[in-house]
Amino acid sequence: MRVVVPFDAREPKTRLGPVLDAAERDALARCMLRDVLVAVDALDAAVEVVATAPVDVGAGLAPHLDDPDPGRSLRSVPVTVDERPLSAVVDAAVDATVGDAGESLAVVMADLALATPAALARLVDAAGDVVVAPGRGAGTNALVVRSPAFRADFHGASYLDHRAAADAAGLTLRTVDSRRLSTDVDEPADLVEAYVDGGEATAAWLTDRFEVAVDEAAGRVSLARR
Amino acid sequence: MRVVVPFDAREPKTRLGPVLDAAERDALARCMLRDVLVAVDALDAAVEVVATAPVDVGAGLAPHLDDPDPGRSLRSVPVTVDERPLSAVVDAAVDATVGDAGESLAVVMADLALATPAALARLVDAAGDVVVAPGRGAGTNALVVRSPAFRADFHGASYLDHRAAADAAGLTLRTVDSRRLSTDVDEPADLVEAYVDGGEATAAWLTDRFEVAVDEAAGRVSLARR
Repeated sequence: MRVVVPFDAREPKTRLGPVLDAAERDALARCMLRDVLVAVDALDAAVEVVATAPVDVGAGLAPHLDDPDPGRSLRSVPVTVDERPLSAVVDAAVDATVGDAGESLAVVMADLALATPAALARLVDAAGDVVVAPGRGAGTNALVVRSPAFRADFHGASYLDHRAAADAAGLTLRTVDSRRLSTDVDEPADLVEAYVDGGEATAAWLTDRFEVAVDEAAGRVSLARR
Repeated sequence: MRVVVPFDAREPKTRLGPVLDAAERDALARCMLRDVLVAVDALDAAVEVVATAPVDVGAGLAPHLDDPDPGRSLRSVPVTVDERPLSAVVDAAVDATVGDAGESLAVVMADLALATPAALARLVDAAGDVVVAPGRGAGTNALVVRSPAFRADFHGASYLDHRAAADAAGLTLRTVDSRRLSTDVDEPADLVEAYVDGGEATAAWLTDRFEVAVDEAAGRVSLARR
């Protein structure tokens, strides 16, 4: 199996603007990428980052961790720079992997801070021509493609679009029921999940800066600056 | 096993006020309760609704469905009216079920519109003195208790509080990684999930009134009135 992790290296996580400045958004995005790559590393797969600009996936991803070798096996993850829209990147990967090489392709978003090897194993072990891990707001957070007939559509409500695309092509589509894979970190409200159950680099970065704040009246839990 | 489904029959779902009036919030809450009871019905368990006021769990829960007998087995679900706070209700159920009868207790919130028998089976089949299905914002959406030493705390970040309570009592706590159980319907943004993957009554009620609206610029998907 081949696993592609798309990463926006230029202006990542703009919707976190209300709570994080640009440098912080960049740092958090790299922590999440690091945690996703660590989780993906447990799969028996050829992993590749496809980024919109060059990115150092070695020690540079999580310099705040007290780890003598934070890069570990990540050093060996190749990075391809590709500025095309995500759907075009994924379609090209489907053609090269599923069509030409007859392999399965998995696509795992770089902001799945809660991803674990167990959750990803459920994704790649699920049957179906197409397997989707739906995200909040009818998005597609992770995807397995086993048929070259599938075309990606990451605009808008991509979970619905991918269901329709699979239907139109006569393909079976299964979903994986995972909170960890359904939680992408896009908006300030999403940070609580990453703080509580995120991977090592993300949780440490957030814990250094934030704490849990409970608004009893509104029934809401969020993060507040320490 | 005993399953308790707590239901706020008085002013349910106030945080949906920006998009639903009081009558609609009440109707939607009853649809979600109906869908949760249908899903729970597949478990081999004694199910009970604990509500803050009397509620008809027969045909009254989803009168909009084209179903000659929408109540089906729900008619046999007993309803207990209990005005105490949720934590007190659950603690009393733990004492009566786990302490006195030596049975397991499951608590399943009435707004888990995406709950399915398969997701609930993963909850009740998970090992551990305490099993939690975490919700958005560090909440507790569903719970299995197998030790009488556990005390509930549904204020604030209850997932964190329940982890701490289990630790303090020397109990093992496991989580179940389920998007369907992590999605409770509290705020307008949550309605998209219920529309797309909710149970029969909830999805039909929402589909009658709303459609999916994609804000491409903001990267957001929501529901808009038809």
